[in-house]
Amino acid sequence: MATNTVNHALLILLVASAASHIAYAGDPDILSDFIIPSNLSQANVTGTFFTYTGMRMLINADPPKTFTVLKATMEQFPALNGQSVSYAVLLFPSGDVNPPHTHPRSAELLFLIYGSLEVGFVDTTNKLYTQTLLAGDMFVFPKGLVHYQYCISNDTAIAISAFGSASAGTVSVPASVFTSGVDDDILAKSFKTDVATIQKIKAGLAPKA
Amino acid sequence: MATNTVNHALLILLVASAASHIAYAGDPDILSDFIIPSNLSQANVTGTFFTYTGMRMLINADPPKTFTVLKATMEQFPALNGQSVSYAVLLFPSGDVNPPHTHPRSAELLFLIYGSLEVGFVDTTNKLYTQTLLAGDMFVFPKGLVHYQYCISNDTAIAISAFGSASAGTVSVPASVFTSGVDDDILAKSFKTDVATIQKIKAGLAPKA
Amino acid sequence: MATNTVNHALLILLVASAASHIAYAGDPDILSDFIIPSNLSQANVTGTFFTYTGMRMLINADPPKTFTVLKATMEQFPALNGQSVSYAVLLFPSGDVNPPHTHPRSAELLFLIYGSLEVGFVDTTNKLYTQTLLAGDMFVFPKGLVHYQYCISNDTAIAISAFGSASAGTVSVPASVFTSGVDDDILAKSFKTDVATIQKIKAGLAPKA
Amino acid sequence: MATNTVNHALLILLVASAASHIAYAGDPDILSDFIIPSNLSQANVTGTFFTYTGMRMLINADPPKTFTVLKATMEQFPALNGQSVSYAVLLFPSGDVNPPHTHPRSAELLFLIYGSLEVGFVDTTNKLYTQTLLAGDMFVFPKGLVHYQYCISNDTAIAISAFGSASAGTVSVPASVFTSGVDDDILAKSFKTDVATIQKIKAGLAPKA
Amino acid sequence: MATNTVNHALLILLVASAASHIAYAGDPDILSDFIIPSNLSQANVTGTFFTYTGMRMLINADPPKTFTVLKATMEQFPALNGQSVSYAVLLFPSGDVNPPHTHPRSAELLFLIYGSLEVGFVDTTNKLYTQTLLAGDMFVFPKGLVHYQYCISNDTAIAISAFGSASAGTVSVPASVFTSGVDDDILAKSFKTDVATIQKIKAGLAPKA
Amino acid sequence: MATNTVNHALLILLVASAASHIAYAGDPDILSDFIIPSNLSQANVTGTFFTYTGMRMLINADPPKTFTVLKATMEQFPALNGQSVSYAVLLFPSGDVNPPHTHPRSAELLFLIYGSLEVGFVDTTNKLYTQTLLAGDMFVFPKGLVHYQYCISNDTAIAISAFGSASAGTVSVPASVFTSGVDDDILAKSFKTDVATIQKIKAGLAPKA
Repeated sequence: MATNTVNHALLILLVASAASHIAYAGDPDILSDFIIPSNLSQANVTGTFFTYTGMRMLINADPPKTFTVLKATMEQFPALNGQSVSYAVLLFPSGDVNPPHTHPRSAELLFLIYGSLEVGFVDTTNKLYTQTLLAGDMFVFPKGLVHYQYCISNDTAIAISAFGSASAGTVSVPASVFTSGVDDDILAKSFKTDVATIQKIKAGLAPKA
Repeated sequence: MATNTVNHALLILLVASAASHIAYAGDPDILSDFIIPSNLSQANVTGTFFTYTGMRMLINADPPKTFTVLKATMEQFPALNGQSVSYAVLLFPSGDVNPPHTHPRSAELLFLIYGSLEVGFVDTTNKLYTQTLLAGDMFVFPKGLVHYQYCISNDTAIAISAFGSASAGTVSVPASVFTSGVDDDILAKSFKTDVATIQKIKAGLAPKA
Repeated sequence: MATNTVNHALLILLVASAASHIAYAGDPDILSDFIIPSNLSQANVTGTFFTYTGMRMLINADPPKTFTVLKATMEQFPALNGQSVSYAVLLFPSGDVNPPHTHPRSAELLFLIYGSLEVGFVDTTNKLYTQTLLAGDMFVFPKGLVHYQYCISNDTAIAISAFGSASAGTVSVPASVFTSGVDDDILAKSFKTDVATIQKIKAGLAPKA
Repeated sequence: MATNTVNHALLILLVASAASHIAYAGDPDILSDFIIPSNLSQANVTGTFFTYTGMRMLINADPPKTFTVLKATMEQFPALNGQSVSYAVLLFPSGDVNPPHTHPRSAELLFLIYGSLEVGFVDTTNKLYTQTLLAGDMFVFPKGLVHYQYCISNDTAIAISAFGSASAGTVSVPASVFTSGVDDDILAKSFKTDVATIQKIKAGLAPKA
Repeated sequence: MATNTVNHALLILLVASAASHIAYAGDPDILSDFIIPSNLSQANVTGTFFTYTGMRMLINADPPKTFTVLKATMEQFPALNGQSVSYAVLLFPSGDVNPPHTHPRSAELLFLIYGSLEVGFVDTTNKLYTQTLLAGDMFVFPKGLVHYQYCISNDTAIAISAFGSASAGTVSVPASVFTSGVDDDILAKSFKTDVATIQKIKAGLAPKA
Repeated sequence: MATNTVNHALLILLVASAASHIAYAGDPDILSDFIIPSNLSQANVTGTFFTYTGMRMLINADPPKTFTVLKATMEQFPALNGQSVSYAVLLFPSGDVNPPHTHPRSAELLFLIYGSLEVGFVDTTNKLYTQTLLAGDMFVFPKGLVHYQYCISNDTAIAISAFGSASAGTVSVPASVFTSGVDDDILAKSFKTDVATIQKIKAGLAPKA
């Protein structure tokens, strides 16, 4: 079976910085087969509406240069509205990390299709669960818990993640805590450190000129 | 009254016949981070519990000889219980079909990672929606509707399907209607045909000796 | 006491062909007592809005000449929107069948008020459950599973079916598979038969000129 | 065609006093096709499990002598567990009333199959909605609101009520407020009346020796 | 992406009569972080939108002269829409009662922060549960059941009640049954008393000129 | 009829460290009035079961010396199981902070009853919303988003927080990211800083000997 297919899948439809991850959740049921956006009439809905081609560029693409997330949520793919499911494709260069984050509206079921990842999550009793994944492995990050992935192999890693929500959302810990403008004093007290350390972290995470 | 009757069988039942598909749906929320099977103690739960290695055999495998579904639902992967998400991998030899079926408990979001598929579904007004998918394309089959996939390329097709339920279930139309034992007369009346035609279809679908 | 009541219920409010059934499901909760359509003002809502008279014609009606379904879902009765409940009345002449179908959004609780029916459904393990019902019996068809009813008595049968959704929807197997336009080759492969047999079934189910 | 069917439906399977009504609601979804009680094995489950014969006695029964409710909820019919639907049959002698009550877990969709009823409910803004129903009419009582039915005809009235829950529950206002033991002073203050009036109402509602 | 149709009336209706209580319930999940009313643009949403100052008047206020309910539901505080939580503050002069009522869309978790209360509720089997609460105690009134509170101390009592719905609603038994216009005969039959007694209760509950 | 598998620990764990917050969410509906733990019989359930006295110690207590959270969730108060609501009381000495955290299973509706707080949360687009609250103010932190509170007054601050879940859970950012054992290298890469800085933060957050 050809394997350099999805595996080396890499062009970037929706370039996401390391800090803009994905996040999802439990959706309300709907009372119709599907939901049509108000700018479409039912008569004009065809199979194309239920198709998303934004990931096609992944096929035979070059390896990723930075950690990249390609999303197929109801924002990119409106037919998902009301269907309680969505995808993200995660592309890791060797040594890159998907920083600690949570998805407020869904668990994440990661399917590693190429390379190797070290993954972990922390439950609400503060217990850490880690695992080294090989190609073909799946790992489930339970709803709402902090988790991360780290590409430990010398090669690219590619994972497909499914979510049980059309719009799970992502809360990145470094971005939301250190780049959204929370006061230095509050952060210094929160992390029991000094303001200089907080400012150093903020500077490292700040967008480069 | 006990409600969790699902057998948390850890059997890795990877290969399903063409007639036993997958089916899923909207799960109840849980009140804990995750659900541990009764035969495990919380202290013994590690990252391994959240890992599923049953798909590892797909890596560098030979092309499929018949249409095959590999499932990762809460039956094969108990950590999915309460997380409202699951996967199936669909393997099509050239020219094979995944016959019309429904999933009673979830929509299906198919991600075609290799080859080409013709897909279709029928809504509750009896309108057919079809699409030819290329590698990299996604297609969403709305909840509970009859749908099929057909490998039209000269090559293998491989798709990953995500479901917004840990146990979506599958109702195969040919199997449930023609191989479960429904009376010939009822089927002849239902399909407005004669008993001989029903019996011919039943014979074709019957397991070969 | 008048007695040709529901029993001889037969005028057809919403004429449904044998192939157009009913289908329903689990609705989202609402945040108000009820939902008023946008063309009504709250002040103008009276008891009439909560009343549906479309089944009144069933009283003292003639026996049905063909299998007929009368629906009271949120489409016919808008006050049901948000209330998670609806009805269908099923009218069977002797020997008629309600062909195999599923309801994507609800279980069905059938209450046989006149005559006798043979009923059945198939679960996701492909096991068939059948029962012969007498007047006064109830039978529950679980959510999303293929089921049918067959009027085995020499007389009319009349059933009232309740659904736990205001819009459960119906997927008729004969109609959705054989009259929606699915390609002959795909169906022949799906049912492991020849194209001629598929075409024969399609011809039988096609509307008569 | 026999006609003393549901109409003369009256024997009392589950004798319910005027004060013990029915009450239901929005159930959690399940992760299996159906739920089997722990005292049954899956292999022993047949069509009989999905059948309820407790209403069969309604057929050709004598008219009711007092207002009577026959329930088919998951308590009487365990197969309803997880299916989010149930029934009650309401039998009214001429002039009898089903006193004001609420169902904490479901709306009620009443289908009047014989006779005539005056019905009403009060919304959370304290607005009363009333309607006079003829045989064949349906009326929906929204979730959780106080409602009543009154048999205004000179004849029996028979209604079938569907609920979008397997266990909707009933809170009878007269019974829960005046016969459960709430202190006379609290009730006198609540109803802005004197203790003597409260005691008079309590005496009227008390079970007769 | 605004989804709500509720009129976000920003009127601060703080003082509710003894007969207009509060009532709440299980809300549908949302697919966004929060819901912005249609008259606001996302760019204009600041921390103020998520703030409710209507209870500020409680600080250092005089003791209540009559039983009073101050609500903070999605009607008064639109940011609660989709967040499944709301508050009411209950202010009791010595000897006053919050008459029997239900909340159709939520349980109530009462936190007594000053004074003493006698509380009670009645379940669907008509069993009464009572308790005398001291300052600092909490009491949970299960969803949809009739309950009351009575200020038995010689002093004011103040309680904060939380609801697991943004719009739980209240059905007051005295108001909905005796002041909404239900016919005297129906009430006399329902409460097994005479019309004069019903009229006496209605007169007591009627608004004073 | 008990359905829950949650350990109904009756431990009254009132005092939580600054790093162990509270966390909650949208609970499944139940099919009964309430859920009784398996070690209680229905007959023995009285009003006491629905009462929680663990907060009584707050009355006339000394001001807090450190930031403290007192919880009343279904762990401390089992009657909350199935009722979708819970409380936490937050006690802040002047200048103390409740560090950034999320609740995976509920929004939080904070009611400031004494003192002054600066509060903030960050949405999934990384926008920060802040507000200075005075006594009597409420603030809603939407579901699953990172938020914090800071006692800016010279005096104690006391807040009551309601959650629309009986078990919302808390994920503290400092604790889950820096004290659960996540590898230094992964954190250094995640926060784009050096290992020394990570180790400094870990040391500050480590429990003191």
